[in-house]
Amino acid sequence: MYSFEHILSKAAQTCAKPFGGLPKHHFVGGNIDEPTIPIDALSDALVDLLKDEGHHLAKYGMDSGMQGYLPLREQIATMLAKRAGMTVNASEILLTTGSLQAMDLVNKALLNAGDIVLIEAENYAGTLTKLDALGVYYIGVKTDDHGMCPLALRDALTNLAQSGRKPKYIFTIPTIQNPTGTVMPLDRRHEILALAREFDIPIFEDDCYADLVFSGERPPALHALDTDERVIYCGTFSKTIAPALRVGYLVAKWPLMGHILPLKTDAGSGALEQMLLAKFVPQNFDAHVKRLLPMLKAKANLLCDALDEHFGSTAHYTKPVGGIYLWVTLPAHVDTEQLLSAALAEGIEINPGPQWAVDKSAAKNKMRICFGHPTHASITEGIKKLAAICHQEFGVPLTSSNTHNQP
Amino acid sequence: MYSFEHILSKAAQTCAKPFGGLPKHHFVGGNIDEPTIPIDALSDALVDLLKDEGHHLAKYGMDSGMQGYLPLREQIATMLAKRAGMTVNASEILLTTGSLQAMDLVNKALLNAGDIVLIEAENYAGTLTKLDALGVYYIGVKTDDHGMCPLALRDALTNLAQSGRKPKYIFTIPTIQNPTGTVMPLDRRHEILALAREFDIPIFEDDCYADLVFSGERPPALHALDTDERVIYCGTFSKTIAPALRVGYLVAKWPLMGHILPLKTDAGSGALEQMLLAKFVPQNFDAHVKRLLPMLKAKANLLCDALDEHFGSTAHYTKPVGGIYLWVTLPAHVDTEQLLSAALAEGIEINPGPQWAVDKSAAKNKMRICFGHPTHASITEGIKKLAAICHQEFGVPLTSSNTHNQP
Repeated sequence: MYSFEHILSKAAQTCAKPFGGLPKHHFVGGNIDEPTIPIDALSDALVDLLKDEGHHLAKYGMDSGMQGYLPLREQIATMLAKRAGMTVNASEILLTTGSLQAMDLVNKALLNAGDIVLIEAENYAGTLTKLDALGVYYIGVKTDDHGMCPLALRDALTNLAQSGRKPKYIFTIPTIQNPTGTVMPLDRRHEILALAREFDIPIFEDDCYADLVFSGERPPALHALDTDERVIYCGTFSKTIAPALRVGYLVAKWPLMGHILPLKTDAGSGALEQMLLAKFVPQNFDAHVKRLLPMLKAKANLLCDALDEHFGSTAHYTKPVGGIYLWVTLPAHVDTEQLLSAALAEGIEINPGPQWAVDKSAAKNKMRICFGHPTHASITEGIKKLAAICHQEFGVPLTSSNTHNQP
Repeated sequence: MYSFEHILSKAAQTCAKPFGGLPKHHFVGGNIDEPTIPIDALSDALVDLLKDEGHHLAKYGMDSGMQGYLPLREQIATMLAKRAGMTVNASEILLTTGSLQAMDLVNKALLNAGDIVLIEAENYAGTLTKLDALGVYYIGVKTDDHGMCPLALRDALTNLAQSGRKPKYIFTIPTIQNPTGTVMPLDRRHEILALAREFDIPIFEDDCYADLVFSGERPPALHALDTDERVIYCGTFSKTIAPALRVGYLVAKWPLMGHILPLKTDAGSGALEQMLLAKFVPQNFDAHVKRLLPMLKAKANLLCDALDEHFGSTAHYTKPVGGIYLWVTLPAHVDTEQLLSAALAEGIEINPGPQWAVDKSAAKNKMRICFGHPTHASITEGIKKLAAICHQEFGVPLTSSNTHNQP
């Protein structure tokens, strides 16, 4: 039989395994709560839309060109104005196959191998693997409870400038940072923007989780505060409506948009989702998110309670103000990669810290726990089991400590 | 204002223009006939599926992993067995954002800059631009009324072997070749496969139009005749159901599939289309295609009649046996790029030959006319106008010749 192994490209050296199903307690991935999917409203919207708009399906671009279905782009512009304080025209929006494609397109448009970018030191694992695949260097900027630290950013920019190098962009997730869950306050947003202007670097803002602030109130996006069009922005419906829909969006000014468009070589993303959301969003989005937030907050609280009960002072975390994940620090001797191996054998999956951080060794004892998708029962049972596995592997939490809540 | 022009990557030098609407007579692109879209059946399928399967949307991969919705992959396996004679397991199918993403993934998995591939000398414009963007060299293999010529393929393979070079793959569209519309007969399929084995080269088979053979009968796919697993295959629902749906599929054996999967960095294609087609295909696909074919054939005939009437012996073509495009040869002095410019000014768009051929100068007087989407009225009126414009620009067709049909 012919083997393709000897003709694989340099990019294709990794080999995935066939899907073997999800573990019972699945605390990873941006999956969301099943009961929150607005099936009835989506159904109603779908039937109407096919009757009214189905003929658009006959054409690539649905009479809207390669940027995606115009009515949805208009809805997104309205939504971004209301929710993120942004002033955006539909012509500056590109609909993408999730925000991951938006990220790929921005990277493809701006980055060559050997380039440098600045990113938050703890980061979405996909950010790191995408940059690795492109041969791009990334420097992790320290974060605290308010997100990326301006002082650390100034240091990094100054150091690079002194060695004659200029990063291609500053990538930030200012609202519900992934994985740390922090929300950058308004004054710090201004500071980060001022630094970007001072060093003349663009900003790539990932706002994927921003609709999930439990209080319903968020600071304006960096894009909204930008005074000289240096912020590229991406967002998604994955975390509010459904991840499998794969509808993300990229916001960029022309002519940058004109340079990005030819790089989207798939002739458009799925039309049905775009048309569906164009119907759904104006009537249902705000109410849907309003219903969603207390359900997510209840799960976040349940997860914190379970950690307090079973890990006690062994697990440190900052109580989440939004989102679907929690960044947990365990004692220094715990290796979360090893914890994952042992946990997987018992049907529990967590994200070990090293995959979510620039400095792998500093994140050895950290883990990301996603609480959006698991049921209440799975959170309670899974965390209890995880604590037992952790104790077995690393001697912590001590059984007695489980009864002491952390401060 | 910040300008991104100075930081664009090497890949992003092209700049697209904002969408300005489609011309009145739009004879380009793989768009299809609007009235053929099965709106009612799709609507019915959608409502059922959201009620029954909507919960899958909460997870990336819809409980099917990163290859896409398993029930649809199973339906495609059944369909490929029946329609193309292929024996394929659902685990060998990857659902993609149209077959264009399948093409990108195969290219990314197998090609490095500087590699060589063999392709049919007249080809889908996207094939050429994708290979150009990758810095891959392509050699055009001569075609005749039966598709890629085995003698020309042997010559190309021999020449390369003598200079110590080996192409990465042979790319072919054996059934309703794009743009020539030819269907490769069974014996030639065996010859092409034998050459691939003799020179030990894989084949990348693009079968996107194969369901549109007007007679409803097609030879088995090369993949079906392959004896040693050297054929990678892609197909799509774009031409049978709707192009904007963006559901294509890639067929590859493991472990090649395992190398391709990590290159699909968008976390999956649109779920709704996949779930919809999983419901629609088993009950409706065959009947839908059966209804579709005579409608397309009628348009093909109308286009040929219009060409005969208005271009007369000035336009040479082979009467189409399927598909949605016609490859037309005009007299040697006609420049179809110039014809396009003049035609666009009058609201008519055609594909000039040079964009659809490896040898641009040899295709200067050729054009591709797509008849799937334009209405009957647009075909009749558009071709009449096009003949007048052609006469104005190039002196042909002569007014008198318009009354003589070609043999």
